[in-house]
Amino acid sequence: MSTPTLLVLDAEPLPRLGRLTGRARIEHTDEATLAERLPHADVLLVWDFTSHAVRGAWPGDGPRPRWVHTASAGVDHLMCPELAASDTVVTNARGVFDQPIAEYVAALVLAMAKDLPTTLRLQGERTWRHRESLRVAGTRACVVGSGPIGRAIARTLEALGVTTALVGRTARTGVHGPQDLDRLLARADWVVAAAPLTDDTRGMFDARRFGVMQPSARFVNVGRGQLVVEDDLAAALTGRRIAGAALDVLSHEPLPADSPLWRVPDLIVSPHMSGDTVGWRDALGAQFVEMFESWAAGGPLANVVDKQRGYVPGH
Amino acid sequence: MSTPTLLVLDAEPLPRLGRLTGRARIEHTDEATLAERLPHADVLLVWDFTSHAVRGAWPGDGPRPRWVHTASAGVDHLMCPELAASDTVVTNARGVFDQPIAEYVAALVLAMAKDLPTTLRLQGERTWRHRESLRVAGTRACVVGSGPIGRAIARTLEALGVTTALVGRTARTGVHGPQDLDRLLARADWVVAAAPLTDDTRGMFDARRFGVMQPSARFVNVGRGQLVVEDDLAAALTGRRIAGAALDVLSHEPLPADSPLWRVPDLIVSPHMSGDTVGWRDALGAQFVEMFESWAAGGPLANVVDKQRGYVPGH
Repeated sequence: MSTPTLLVLDAEPLPRLGRLTGRARIEHTDEATLAERLPHADVLLVWDFTSHAVRGAWPGDGPRPRWVHTASAGVDHLMCPELAASDTVVTNARGVFDQPIAEYVAALVLAMAKDLPTTLRLQGERTWRHRESLRVAGTRACVVGSGPIGRAIARTLEALGVTTALVGRTARTGVHGPQDLDRLLARADWVVAAAPLTDDTRGMFDARRFGVMQPSARFVNVGRGQLVVEDDLAAALTGRRIAGAALDVLSHEPLPADSPLWRVPDLIVSPHMSGDTVGWRDALGAQFVEMFESWAAGGPLANVVDKQRGYVPGH
Repeated sequence: MSTPTLLVLDAEPLPRLGRLTGRARIEHTDEATLAERLPHADVLLVWDFTSHAVRGAWPGDGPRPRWVHTASAGVDHLMCPELAASDTVVTNARGVFDQPIAEYVAALVLAMAKDLPTTLRLQGERTWRHRESLRVAGTRACVVGSGPIGRAIARTLEALGVTTALVGRTARTGVHGPQDLDRLLARADWVVAAAPLTDDTRGMFDARRFGVMQPSARFVNVGRGQLVVEDDLAAALTGRRIAGAALDVLSHEPLPADSPLWRVPDLIVSPHMSGDTVGWRDALGAQFVEMFESWAAGGPLANVVDKQRGYVPGH
């Protein structure tokens, strides 16, 4: 095989691809030149995983990369019918974010149980006001999304004594199917959204589902912003139909300064950082380099996305 | 035995002692009338565990209660040489606070690792600013205090993947002695103070010990405020000699509004609430009622404090 062309849709800081020197012809592109360069590339690395430019730039039936890798768990930002219908293989960064996101969810759950936002607000006001807080052990969680991230969240919550149910697309051992969702939501103290964004999951957390939850329930989204009808969540919080929520992902990122979501009562907004612990970019780069070496040697690719479903099918 | 007199040093809300009706002559007192009533009491329940009045009111060699129970883990607020020298038995609320405090410490550790205070501040400013945060798994903690609270903290941190060393008054299986403390502090990412306040522990976290810690270390105090030389901690934080701290207990409680501690950089101040989860007062009352019934029946008392050491000796 001649030296393959690797096209990188750039974001700062750039990936460390030094190990591929001489084994790939590496070209860099931004969104503006992506469409022009895509037809000549064998491999596309979507390093800028916030970009939606692949959809518009995809060459359709023309010459195109044989392989597209995205440095993210979700693939919703790049999938389009033409890419899904093509023979191009799509892979993702499955595995890199599991444990960091699980810890982040545990941090949010514990912070809400212990009322840390109020403590910090009162500290700012130099006010000592003792309050009672909640035990976490003995409570119940429902984690929606049964991939590696959802399973890591469940393991971490279980380690804290939280009885945790996983809900996936299909029922299997240890995983509930969608038919159990409403029943599980109705008894959960913590509802965690960690599902991929697909036609099935878009807007699944809406007024009806917040209405099913207990008034004492708290909701956490670390999946994709569009899993949630954000206006419905704001109304549920303002109307005290649920007790609290935390959104690390939003329908529009970055969240505009004039969004009312910044000021919804009992809502924590964080800037899509749950998986991004120190060294995360290096981990993403190293994962891609390993996958590239395997692919270039004719070996199998890991983390192959089912392009119809929109995620890597697992057990 | 005639019906014993149970004197309660009151705090709101009052303990639920209904089960003792007819089995104890229950009298209530505040700090002002404590000295006058103590000599006639068989049992003193220090329900107001924030009060230091027992020290001043203790009758010395005169008639005095045979048993004093405090609805707290620490006994520093009531111990005095005369009480220590007497044959009066002192018991505490050992066991009630262990798991709640362990969860609270986990909440603080995770909140600091994930930089939640900055997230909440930026939310208040309607500002989306992505940052990298820290993994908790794979870090190291040193927990000072090897009683049930310290051990529960260690178990909970270990469940989150934190390698945790316990330091107690004497080395034993699973517990380091004081001679290991500085070495353990020097490699800890998290230092947690959960020791009783005694002559040995007062002011143990001072400028020298903060100097031993890593610049990346974070310190948590859930024991007693006076374990810490607070001015030294403030200087260590201001001078970036350690990276952060959280104090749930303070030398002066409630912390006065004009205290500079409210505004020390990277310091979280909370109002002595780590153990106080919903139902905690009921749990404290129920624990005392059980102990009283055992004592009145001539049975053994649990949670007997070693009055010289200032805590319940354990394994």
